[in-house]
Amino acid sequence: MKYSSLAIALTFLLCGLTPAQDGSVPAPGNLGGNEYPRISADQRVTFRLKAPEAKKVQVRGGAGLVKDALDLVKSDDGVWTGTTAPATGGFHYYWFVVDGVIVNDTARPTWFGWGRECSGIDVPEKDPKDGEFYAAKEVPRGEVRVNWYQSKVSGKLRRAHVYTPPAYDQQPQQRFPVLYLQHGAGENERGWVEQGRANFILDNLIATGKAVPMMAVVDTGYAVRPGSESAGPTSAFEEVMLTELIPLIDARYRTIADAEHRAMAGLSMGSGQTLSIAPKHPERFAWIGAMSGPPRKGFDVKTSFDGAFADAAAFNGRTKLLWLSAGTAEEEFHRHTLAMHEALTGAGIKNVFYSSPGTDHEWQTWRRSLHEFAQRLFKE
Amino acid sequence: MKYSSLAIALTFLLCGLTPAQDGSVPAPGNLGGNEYPRISADQRVTFRLKAPEAKKVQVRGGAGLVKDALDLVKSDDGVWTGTTAPATGGFHYYWFVVDGVIVNDTARPTWFGWGRECSGIDVPEKDPKDGEFYAAKEVPRGEVRVNWYQSKVSGKLRRAHVYTPPAYDQQPQQRFPVLYLQHGAGENERGWVEQGRANFILDNLIATGKAVPMMAVVDTGYAVRPGSESAGPTSAFEEVMLTELIPLIDARYRTIADAEHRAMAGLSMGSGQTLSIAPKHPERFAWIGAMSGPPRKGFDVKTSFDGAFADAAAFNGRTKLLWLSAGTAEEEFHRHTLAMHEALTGAGIKNVFYSSPGTDHEWQTWRRSLHEFAQRLFKE
Repeated sequence: MKYSSLAIALTFLLCGLTPAQDGSVPAPGNLGGNEYPRISADQRVTFRLKAPEAKKVQVRGGAGLVKDALDLVKSDDGVWTGTTAPATGGFHYYWFVVDGVIVNDTARPTWFGWGRECSGIDVPEKDPKDGEFYAAKEVPRGEVRVNWYQSKVSGKLRRAHVYTPPAYDQQPQQRFPVLYLQHGAGENERGWVEQGRANFILDNLIATGKAVPMMAVVDTGYAVRPGSESAGPTSAFEEVMLTELIPLIDARYRTIADAEHRAMAGLSMGSGQTLSIAPKHPERFAWIGAMSGPPRKGFDVKTSFDGAFADAAAFNGRTKLLWLSAGTAEEEFHRHTLAMHEALTGAGIKNVFYSSPGTDHEWQTWRRSLHEFAQRLFKE
Repeated sequence: MKYSSLAIALTFLLCGLTPAQDGSVPAPGNLGGNEYPRISADQRVTFRLKAPEAKKVQVRGGAGLVKDALDLVKSDDGVWTGTTAPATGGFHYYWFVVDGVIVNDTARPTWFGWGRECSGIDVPEKDPKDGEFYAAKEVPRGEVRVNWYQSKVSGKLRRAHVYTPPAYDQQPQQRFPVLYLQHGAGENERGWVEQGRANFILDNLIATGKAVPMMAVVDTGYAVRPGSESAGPTSAFEEVMLTELIPLIDARYRTIADAEHRAMAGLSMGSGQTLSIAPKHPERFAWIGAMSGPPRKGFDVKTSFDGAFADAAAFNGRTKLLWLSAGTAEEEFHRHTLAMHEALTGAGIKNVFYSSPGTDHEWQTWRRSLHEFAQRLFKE
């Protein structure tokens, strides 16, 4: 009995991708040789859960995989199955709901989103070429370095993840520009690497000379002063970022520690944080990226974000790049982002709008956004 | 609707530790301000799950927290609760079983064990002093660097985690010895950092001068040659380690690349791998640690491990340290480890046995083991 955990090893036969008669294959990365979930050639995902006693089982998850909920159907052996409509390529959160209880899929790793650990699946692109930019290719690879630091502001231990490009170790005299990347609501500092594959995207861009070698820093956007919980869960983030995180990174790494070599970008909630922090701190950031997170109540160029955009000439003079994006399938975000782009342009503020074809409020929009944004960074 | 994910942020009020009338507090690290699980002053853990439709709910998990299973009891509002006996301090895996379905606790992060993602909880020590050695203290901190590499042997992308001590970046001319640390069955390369807190243990030891500055490398012990699945899920690990991982680490980092400055240790399955690999490769490893993983069928000094221990004088001459450990509560492991220690000693082979008081086949045994073992490493 005591050796039972050793026996688990024997069950760990790694799966190949076994095609079924319908052409579906086990999802890449299934744990322990599990055959399900499976993905068909037309990007439909088939889920499976054994729950003989359950009365109702659904799959719920992120936009791009299931709209609202997918009802599973029970067979005589107590196994529930169901198949989605064709999904968007890229990463999707999902989970089962079994008679009202959230249940992760033991066949899959988890990713942190929705304020908790969620199952997830990366659906291969219909045209494999479309997935090459975030694939783990045989190019020189950077590292992701986990840095724990004690925040005096929040009183919490934080865990910044720092991407260093391949040149960082190879050229010990060189200093590098830094991109600060923020996740969305309910996610954390793991998001941009684990869901976003930011390290592979940057490795690939740097290897082909499409992006300059840069560092990227991903930390959680949540921070609260003890006793100020009512101010909201992100209320102390700006202070943590400006007075603790950036000084730590500039002290610990070979950064170029000026605004012209520092960018901030974020997705959804992180976009809101970027627009709130970066434009009003031109002494810190000259490069700004806002992905799928325009102002919720409309954008006014004179008054929004504490008037940071009110003076077009001043803004243009101190900002190297203001870059906005959204996916065409996240209609409300896309409409508001486009409206912001047009208002900025109308007011004479230079900015770029990137529209991700066919993607929703999902990581594929943000992988593509990073891929586009990073190619413009730190270039004159 | 589309902004619903933004709203999640507002629910994210971080919890303080709210004492209840019974003196229990929410477990440190509960997500989203959840009040449960709670931990009492005498280290009992109270779990809670809302599952109104369920007929039977249990908590199962690792040794040291629940023996076999804890049956939860349902109240009128559909909430199931139950309290364990006093638990061992330290990390424990757990999960709910709801009418036969494995359900993780959405109030907790997950850790990879048992071949899947599991809920987990770190129970504070009864005497806080006992937990100081693995606490995140205000000392100079090393980094954990995530390295992806493509294995030609297994055809898989692997993800080694590399601890570098604080001096690594501060003293760019210095080279460092390396400890290779292996996880147990059903775990992966995250185990030694996330469950084991190896980085904090080493930070604390190095800060107080109790250990020499060293690197640590943790990679998964699973590796199979494509087409050789029948040989077992770890069948290609030795080849990956010796021909790919060690050369990669020695090429990429400022290591001291000889046997006198390279150690291998592991827990449970990883102990078996260590004893199988390190003693027969004296050209690679002069320091060997076997934690909670003695030979299952008894140890014979002349024949076990391909006779690597058969010649005591030769073994003693080439080995700096052979170190064994087990917890007193993991009785079978402890008995076999003690027997191995005695057989080795009887045959004239120098070795050290460390017995962890009161701990079972659980991470607290291995945190303590690392803490003891690391203090002896790379010293004459």
